Amino acid sequence: MAGLKLITFSDVAGSRVGVLLDGGRVLDLAVAMPPARDMIALIEAGPAALAAVRALTANPPANAVLAADKVALQAPIPRPRRNVFCVGRNYMDHVAEGDRTRGITNSEVPKFPQFFTKAADTVIAPGALVPSHTGVTSWLDYEVELVAVIGTAGRDIPKEKALDHVFGWTIGNDVTGRELQRRHGQWFKGKSLDRSCPMGPVIVPREDLDTSDIAISLKLNGEQRQSSRTSKMIFDVKEIIHQLSAGFTLLPGDVIMTGTPEGVGYAMQPPQTMKTGDVMELTIEGIGVLTNAIGD
Amino acid sequence: MAGLKLITFSDVAGSRVGVLLDGGRVLDLAVAMPPARDMIALIEAGPAALAAVRALTANPPANAVLAADKVALQAPIPRPRRNVFCVGRNYMDHVAEGDRTRGITNSEVPKFPQFFTKAADTVIAPGALVPSHTGVTSWLDYEVELVAVIGTAGRDIPKEKALDHVFGWTIGNDVTGRELQRRHGQWFKGKSLDRSCPMGPVIVPREDLDTSDIAISLKLNGEQRQSSRTSKMIFDVKEIIHQLSAGFTLLPGDVIMTGTPEGVGYAMQPPQTMKTGDVMELTIEGIGVLTNAIGD
Repeated sequence: MAGLKLITFSDVAGSRVGVLLDGGRVLDLAVAMPPARDMIALIEAGPAALAAVRALTANPPANAVLAADKVALQAPIPRPRRNVFCVGRNYMDHVAEGDRTRGITNSEVPKFPQFFTKAADTVIAPGALVPSHTGVTSWLDYEVELVAVIGTAGRDIPKEKALDHVFGWTIGNDVTGRELQRRHGQWFKGKSLDRSCPMGPVIVPREDLDTSDIAISLKLNGEQRQSSRTSKMIFDVKEIIHQLSAGFTLLPGDVIMTGTPEGVGYAMQPPQTMKTGDVMELTIEGIGVLTNAIGD
Repeated sequence: MAGLKLITFSDVAGSRVGVLLDGGRVLDLAVAMPPARDMIALIEAGPAALAAVRALTANPPANAVLAADKVALQAPIPRPRRNVFCVGRNYMDHVAEGDRTRGITNSEVPKFPQFFTKAADTVIAPGALVPSHTGVTSWLDYEVELVAVIGTAGRDIPKEKALDHVFGWTIGNDVTGRELQRRHGQWFKGKSLDRSCPMGPVIVPREDLDTSDIAISLKLNGEQRQSSRTSKMIFDVKEIIHQLSAGFTLLPGDVIMTGTPEGVGYAMQPPQTMKTGDVMELTIEGIGVLTNAIGD
């Protein structure tokens, strides 16, 4: 069974939530189910609302169906209420490739996840342009990541209950200014360039997709750069939520990027950057493809 | 001349902005100047609104004056729209004391500021309790910091124009779980425990206070722990804004904590932590005193 594909989209009538249907169609939930005015409201409305969406998707009312090519896809949560939470160095082969750029050949497995954030305003839509940030960074890089969207609030969440707090899954691209990331020590600066966080195209509900061992990959201009499986995470989604929520309350609509596998540009021989016109194509099995280009 | 003291306060009628007057009085701007419904709205209203507040403060209408002891002070910006931006290791004597705990005796002056964030929701009012977070951290520490509040949006802000983007100044306490900060590598986890960012008590407008060389200090339970001057910052406020805004748009109401001087608990011999009942008293010359206790 393919998972439900929840989207945020816009047209002249504004921004609202919907479902991506087969055959190039979109179910407009603002028509079919008016209380779901945006994705965070839908998430907060809980399991009954999601069940109602499923029922409508199985039998979409004709007056609520639009042609997908007549609307513009936005990020599923266009502006998270809080910074995007991120985990660094969470795939061992990525830890090792990063260490090699610093002359370290016997990498240690991290004992604790490294949490940092990207400013909430950095989130952009599928298809939107990521600025080249010429003059600010000369080393722009990509990172494909599985994103967990929080459904219910919680603090000190035990590992065995962590997935109960997940609403669904999407794809994120943690675009990074590498020399900024490195020279400022803490990563916020290199990770929060304007428009540096493409996200989407859809949210698949948690119960529709087991993300414990799925393929995750990225192509740059058609060339395969990253290709791994989520089972290779050092800290799995349960552990990430458990540790991040220690003494810190997670809220519905929070987005957590769970780290990138090996194959980033800065660890290539010779190191690679991105330039205007480059196209990043991110794929996660069961979720879809997120495509964005560099452009000013 | 004493600076204007802008506050956010609440009583049974709700939360609103005001001015702390002499003689235990508060000017209620919601009565005197209704459009200023909260501090961010006042900031966004620009110089004309601030001039109107000054005129009202010089001649407060009787129907808009309240007794200060009948209202509760909140943080000046109770819930910033974005994470609190912070600078680490920005006073050389603090860099050196931190290095000493790791056996480093010849500290290098940082070449670039280290930017990290605290979750926006961590901000709490003067007088509010900071949880002890027992079970999450056993090493809770304080940090007094000068806070710059952004007034006008900007990106790629040149150093010589940086202060034009500052609305005013307040005091922040960057309460930290030290072993979390250290073991997670990136600092977000140790810096974003719930309710770990006391802020206030007032915002003094930028033009009322030259913060380039003022006294900054902290007492714990009456004992002087931190005492320095803002002139000892490695990266001054202008440089911080210049570098933080490179490729990253700052917005009105953003708050930037500019680093803490030496004297933190973890660098003492032996290292000190805080426990329930401890009282932190933070003073910055020309702004005021921010007092919070640890309690559950």
